[in-house]
Amino acid sequence: MPKKVDHEKQKKVLAKAAWRVIKKEGIEGASVRKIAKEAGLSAGSLRHYFSNQSELLAYSMNLVSERVKTRIQNAAFTEDHFENMILVLGELLPLDEERRLEMEVWIAFNIKALVDPNLAELSSRVYDEMKEGIRKVIEGLKLNGISRSDLNAGEEVERLYALVDGLALHAVMNPDHFTESKMKGILRTHLLSLC
Amino acid sequence: MPKKVDHEKQKKVLAKAAWRVIKKEGIEGASVRKIAKEAGLSAGSLRHYFSNQSELLAYSMNLVSERVKTRIQNAAFTEDHFENMILVLGELLPLDEERRLEMEVWIAFNIKALVDPNLAELSSRVYDEMKEGIRKVIEGLKLNGISRSDLNAGEEVERLYALVDGLALHAVMNPDHFTESKMKGILRTHLLSLC
Repeated sequence: MPKKVDHEKQKKVLAKAAWRVIKKEGIEGASVRKIAKEAGLSAGSLRHYFSNQSELLAYSMNLVSERVKTRIQNAAFTEDHFENMILVLGELLPLDEERRLEMEVWIAFNIKALVDPNLAELSSRVYDEMKEGIRKVIEGLKLNGISRSDLNAGEEVERLYALVDGLALHAVMNPDHFTESKMKGILRTHLLSLC
Repeated sequence: MPKKVDHEKQKKVLAKAAWRVIKKEGIEGASVRKIAKEAGLSAGSLRHYFSNQSELLAYSMNLVSERVKTRIQNAAFTEDHFENMILVLGELLPLDEERRLEMEVWIAFNIKALVDPNLAELSSRVYDEMKEGIRKVIEGLKLNGISRSDLNAGEEVERLYALVDGLALHAVMNPDHFTESKMKGILRTHLLSLC
């Protein structure tokens, strides 16, 4: 058992080393050699955990979405459903340094997935999962009687999802401009406009 | 004079060859050698037009924004200000194959600009120009008495801009799902919600 735990732990260490290399050099600079070096391992030892670059990148990409899901599950929810939805959506935005790194890497992964079949399936699956999460936000507002009853839920899901990802993209491009309060303010304005 | 025209024309041919290579192989595959090959030139001849890869990529990136601006200037505007604004915003979305290629390349450029100082300045300048365009849309709706008078224009500019870029990103990732009418429908819903 301890061996298995160590194996998983080491994979995460390598995935995070991959994120740092991607942040510094872009995804095109994220070679197995550079990621191993960043993690303080030889390329040979890295191959004990991942048989090739694509497998390592897919694992690193998946780890971003796992962390987002875990944070949403552990969010400090209250009785205020509206504010809870702001908390959930905030987990999809680069509100602090940790999430900024994740988002930057996440967007780079998705662009790479356009030309890398090994990442495309994962990119598509996580896109659908996130969309389901957004759907729950919209439906939750409706069920709780907070939003207008005449909303076209399907279209509002697409609109909110695009807004959140566009905001994440802009915040990654302009970290100084997009403060946490600015991003949450835009989310709040948007959700209020549905009410 | 003819020589200068040919020179500019050839630079555009090379920039579009760069787009096609980026679409097929990602920006990390867009080497000078591959772009030259795609355009049917030798890498040596390419260097007659661009002294290095970064200069060629910057030119290709700038060409996307120039084409968007030209299309907006030439759009079939009518007396209906609201519909005109849908036309303007539509030029920022991948509504057809040509614009899909431009958008895909544009997003890849912006991600690359995060780690490439030679592209960062251009990325930032075009980001600001596009934001000015979005500001004109919001202010135009206000001036024409179409939008609500209590809008927070600054925030609405950020929200609409994020929506448009997020929609472009999603449409590039899911070309079959995001039809022209779906994208325009979302824009229309958004602008109507401001009125």
